[in-house]
Order: sequence, then structure tokens, then C-alpha cells
Amino acid sequence: MFVAIMGYGVVGSGVANCLKQNYNHIKENSVPEGLEVRYILDLRDFPGDPFESLVIHDLDTIIDDPEVKIVVETMGGLHPAYEFVTECLKSGKSVVTSNKELVAMKGYELLLTARENNVNFMFEASVGGGIPLIRPIISCLAANEITEVAGILNGTTNFILTKMINENMPFDEALKIAQSLGYAEKDPTADVEGIDACRKICILAALCFGRHVYPESVHTEGIRNITLKDVEYAKKWGGVIKLIASASKTGDGHITASVSPAFVRNESQLAGVNGVFNAALLRGNAVGDVVFYGQGAGSMPTASAVAADVIDCAKHTCCRKEFGWKASEEGFVIPYDDFVSPFYIRGNADAEKVASSFSNVQFIENAPGEFALITPPVSVKELKSKLDGIDGIGSVIRVTDY
Amino acid sequence: MFVAIMGYGVVGSGVANCLKQNYNHIKENSVPEGLEVRYILDLRDFPGDPFESLVIHDLDTIIDDPEVKIVVETMGGLHPAYEFVTECLKSGKSVVTSNKELVAMKGYELLLTARENNVNFMFEASVGGGIPLIRPIISCLAANEITEVAGILNGTTNFILTKMINENMPFDEALKIAQSLGYAEKDPTADVEGIDACRKICILAALCFGRHVYPESVHTEGIRNITLKDVEYAKKWGGVIKLIASASKTGDGHITASVSPAFVRNESQLAGVNGVFNAALLRGNAVGDVVFYGQGAGSMPTASAVAADVIDCAKHTCCRKEFGWKASEEGFVIPYDDFVSPFYIRGNADAEKVASSFSNVQFIENAPGEFALITPPVSVKELKSKLDGIDGIGSVIRVTDY
Repeated sequence: MFVAIMGYGVVGSGVANCLKQNYNHIKENSVPEGLEVRYILDLRDFPGDPFESLVIHDLDTIIDDPEVKIVVETMGGLHPAYEFVTECLKSGKSVVTSNKELVAMKGYELLLTARENNVNFMFEASVGGGIPLIRPIISCLAANEITEVAGILNGTTNFILTKMINENMPFDEALKIAQSLGYAEKDPTADVEGIDACRKICILAALCFGRHVYPESVHTEGIRNITLKDVEYAKKWGGVIKLIASASKTGDGHITASVSPAFVRNESQLAGVNGVFNAALLRGNAVGDVVFYGQGAGSMPTASAVAADVIDCAKHTCCRKEFGWKASEEGFVIPYDDFVSPFYIRGNADAEKVASSFSNVQFIENAPGEFALITPPVSVKELKSKLDGIDGIGSVIRVTDY
Repeated sequence: MFVAIMGYGVVGSGVANCLKQNYNHIKENSVPEGLEVRYILDLRDFPGDPFESLVIHDLDTIIDDPEVKIVVETMGGLHPAYEFVTECLKSGKSVVTSNKELVAMKGYELLLTARENNVNFMFEASVGGGIPLIRPIISCLAANEITEVAGILNGTTNFILTKMINENMPFDEALKIAQSLGYAEKDPTADVEGIDACRKICILAALCFGRHVYPESVHTEGIRNITLKDVEYAKKWGGVIKLIASASKTGDGHITASVSPAFVRNESQLAGVNGVFNAALLRGNAVGDVVFYGQGAGSMPTASAVAADVIDCAKHTCCRKEFGWKASEEGFVIPYDDFVSPFYIRGNADAEKVASSFSNVQFIENAPGEFALITPPVSVKELKSKLDGIDGIGSVIRVTDY
């Protein structure tokens, strides 16, 4: 069976290599007729590249070849990826993508287009890189009502936080190292500000809770304001600070969804996820908590997930894999003001004044000129009103129960 | 669609409850016609039980009902489970089981029978309870050559070891607590001696490496001889002792497979798996290491995995899910004597004499009358010959690199 790849960057070339390297393994175990890359669509040429001869510049070459049944989209960005993917689906080809922006923004439409054309649209690699997540959600946990999904979904910020936690390194310095190692881009905004993690939790929330979730409905905070002081207090409390993307059912047909730094207890399986690794926790009403851990980015891990989807498409050329979600709905994600959680508060305000506005607090530090405490569960709105007009509040960070 | 359950114990009743509790969720998301339990086969009656009216005592009632397309086997034990499952498959019904003994001993035959009768035989719940493992291996990691699989696959022994590690509690006392909490049976042999973990690694090895692996070909050691002294030295070394079941490719078409206590570094994702929780690590040539974590036993977690298989069978009544492995082969699993690993050695022998027989060792302790050290990688055969004739060797424990 023949495959085309659109976009020959880090992930696209990984996919070409992975399919070639494991050709025999895949043929023996999964796709008896074999899986072969026939075209690689890119604006550039790649003289000297082992796949040079497959490079083409015109989408129609792929569309017009009836033997190409599966197209891999690893171009990134929203346009022209959306138009190209739509055209492939409409011409009866299944599409596999690693493009989280595309799925977070256009997942509902593309799944619909796939259904209308009786082909598959798959995107395991768009969340958690090589970690199997989407298939476990839609099939392994199919007998569960999933009530919560949470994870460390961005390797760059987790690398930086790990440096801050383990080496007491300030944020700026850790960011520079991440950039020098290629873990962070020159403009690190999408990672550091939580935008990347937000797209991923949108995809997971849609899968778990059945409705498209747009990034703009998700409260998103990055890690730029995390100080070594907060890292220290988290340690004293018995945990670490992680950038947590999460979504949960509220019980009345709505969901919460947010990305923010959070205190995570050392006992949590998420606390030990270090460096560029990712992990996601799913809470089901039968299975309890399950956690999936692995490399959330990188050429070969991501290619592994793309290739698994390609194989699944190859096995499902006759019968489509039925999955998807409904259109987004105003108010499906509750406003962040209604989000309820315990919070960590640090500052040099009058500690007793801050503490007295809560039913009970747990002090981590209560020294003259510096306090750090954990509040009981409280809505963001209440929290704001309680802290309104109090000077000297330094940090406010969510506390999780994973 | 109608389902029958054979064996109404802890898991069987969990399956009945899980399918009932999540009936609407499953109907909306996975099986539009709904999934309903029609019969529960058991020797006993269950007066007052909510499913009392479904209880039958004769297998033929199930076999003769053409509307029952899927049968769940949660009887446990090899006989008559094997005969019953075979009869169900031959009568054109798909079978889902949680019975690790059945799969470890008869998996090859039953997969063959299923194929011959164009039905499915699934067993996600037989390894790792509710943790998705089998589906990730056969589909999510399909583009990888898996080189190693390793895990903490027995909750009872992990509970005992956790008590020993965290509370400095001796083995016998921890075992008694496990028994009083229902985590260990009155006769704890199958758990404590590693027999249960052995069956599970046989199943995982067959899936990952393509050939049936019988428990008798797998070196199996339990945790009865682990002392608090060893636990202490593991801490000093920077890790913990876990009961590790593992299998790996040797590179020449063979595999290793063993169950034994092992030193695991604190940085490993397996080190933080505590209490009755389980976890499995898979090493792929593209994805690197991925780890799956969750509850490895218990009524509802295990039922969750069974029910997921039932749903998968319901979705695959037309086209069979194609997976399986080849028959076992003499010599496929290399003798344990040829297994190569670093080892921890503790004792009151002449430390320098022990150390001098290795190219280099790492001492954890070298006091008069007591030593503890880590050897370089060495085969079990070599290790035995090096220690042969030396008195005062207390413990010898494998050291992992996960």
C-alpha cells in the first residue's frame, strides 16, 4: 500500500525513516502487502537526501494517484494544512496528522469530512508525541466514563521546570539551555506561555468528553512567572511545580479546562516526570487512575505514533474506524472564574489577614515578611474577591489532587 | 447485543456491574445497539443478588442462544475454562477473558481456534488489570520493533515491598497485612513466589516477540528472601527493590525472560510505583521507553479492561481483529544461565576476594564483616562460577537499567 507525506521536516522525515526501517516488521505483523512511501510533498528540494527522488511540489500528484490510500500531514500550521487535508479526505484518502493546531482548531470539521467520505482521519501524534493516548481513550477505556484528564503535555516547559527544581536554576537560564539543546525555539512563546499544552488538552477534552473544545475557551497560563522561591515552597510542602493541562467533568454536563502551573504531590505519578518527557493521567469511573508516560516530542517518537496511525488506516481501508465528537457549544467549558481548587498563595502581605478569609489554611511558611500557604478548595472568583485589595500577594498557584 | 458471563466471582460481577453502570455511555459512544448481559454461568446460585435472575448452570444455554455473540470467561483456572472457551469459540462466539493462567498456557491454541472460527479471542484484563497494555502493544506501537518489555505486574508483592521500603517492615509482617486487607490470599504462593507475574510476562513476551512462551521456560524467583538489609542497601545505592518481570530480544532471534527481585534506580518510572499499583515499560526502536501505570487488580479496574474487550468484539463482529503469535519453540527463551546483567551482591565473605573476580565493582558498603556491591554486566553462569566456593554470600539481586 502506498503512502504520501506532506511536509518533510523533523516529523515528516522521521515518518519516512520509521516506515522504511521497520518495513519488514510492519509487513510481517500488520500490513501483509507492505507500506511504502511513494511521494513526499514539500516546497523545498532535498538534494542528497535518501528520499530525494520521492520529493514532489504539487498536491495534485498525490490526489490523482489512486494507489495512494493514506496521506500523512506533517506540515504544521493551520494553512494550507487544513485545505490540503480536506482535499485528500474528499478524494477518498485517509489522513494521519501530527499537527495539534490543526486538530485543536479544525478537528470537528475534519472528522466530519472523513466520515462523509468514508475514510479515516487520525491524529495520535498530535498529543503526547509517541505516547499512546488517543487509542487507549477511545478503545481501552471505552467501558469507562472518563471524569478527568490531566497531564504534562509540553516537553519544553517540563525541561525548564526540571532544571529549576533539580538544579535550582532560574527560569531565564534554564530557557537558554533548552534553546541551545533545541528543546525550545528561538521564540519560545508557544511553549512557555502554555499555548502548545492548551491545544493538546483541547484535543484530549474533545475525545474524553465528546465535544469540540476551542483553545480560546481554555484558561491558559505559562510558567514565566514561576520563581525559585515557589519551587522551594513546593518542596517544603512535599511536591513539585509542573505545568498541568487538565479538563474534568463538572457533573452537570459541563467541563472545566485549563493550563497552568500547579503543585503536584511527590507521590503522584506526574511528579516524577522529568526533562522533556510527557505523561497523561486519565481518571475513569471503573478503572480509577491510569497514567501513560513517554517522549512527548522528537522525530522518531512522534513518527512512531504517526506510523501506528498509518498502519491502522491500512488495516481499516474497508471499514472506517468510527470515532469523533460533537460540535463545540457555547458554555460547554465553564468560565475559569467558576473553577474550584485549593490554591497556594505566597507573599509578604499580612499572613493572618489572608488566612482569616478562608475557613482553614495550611501554612508552609509563616515568617515575618513572608508567608506561603495552601487554601481549602475555593472558586477562582471567590479567591479573587478574598484577595482583592490586599497588597503583597506574590504568587497564586493551583494545587492538584493527582 | 447480548453477552454471557462465565464465572460470577470478583471479576465476573465487576463486569456485570460495569456494563450495567455504563450502559448509556457505551450505547452512545461505542455500541449503538447497546450491550446487555443475558446469562451468568456459575455453579452457585446468588439469592438476592441484583443479577440473580440471569444465573444459569448449563453451558449449553449459552452455546444454543444465537443472540449471544460474546462470552466473558472470568472463572479462572485452566479447567474447565479451556474447554468452555474452546466450545464457545467453535460455536461462533467471541470470547473475552481475564484468566492469565489460561492465556499463558493455552493462548496459542485459543487464538488459532478463534481464527479458524472467524471470531475474536481477547484478553486485555489478563495482564495489568485495568491498565491498557495489549492494545497499545498491537496497535499503538505497531510501527516499532519492541526490544524489551518489563514491569511490576503483581500488586500483592508490590504492596509487600512498598511496606518494606517505606515503613521498614519485615516481609512476614507485611504479608500478614496484605492478607488482612484481601491483597494476598491465605496461601500466597502464586503471588509471593512470582508465579502470577510469570504468567503475565509470558503473555506480554508472546505479544511483543511473536511466539508463545510457556511459564516453565521462564526463570522465576519470588520475594520471600528479600531482607530489610537489602532494602537498605538499595536505598544507599539510590533505588528500590521491585519484583520485575521482563523479557527482551537478544539480537539473534531469541529472547530472555525472567521474574525476579531487582534493583531499580529512583529516577526510573517503575521506582515510584507503590502499593498494589502495577506498571509496564515497553522499549521500542522508534518510540524509546513508554510506561503504562494503573491498578493491576481489583474488581472494577479489571472489569474495565474486560468490558473494553467486549466492546471491541461488538465492534468487530464483521471483521475479525487480526492478531496472535506463533507456536512455542524449543530454545526461543535462552537459558537463565546465559542472562546478562549487573548484579548486587551482599554478604560477609571476603569482600576483596569477591570484588577481585570482576573487572570492576561499585561498593555500596565495604565494612569489616559486611559488604554490598554492584558487579559489571555478567552472565548468570559466570556469576555462579565466580562465586562458587566462596562462603558468606547473603543475597544476589539483579540490577536493571530502566
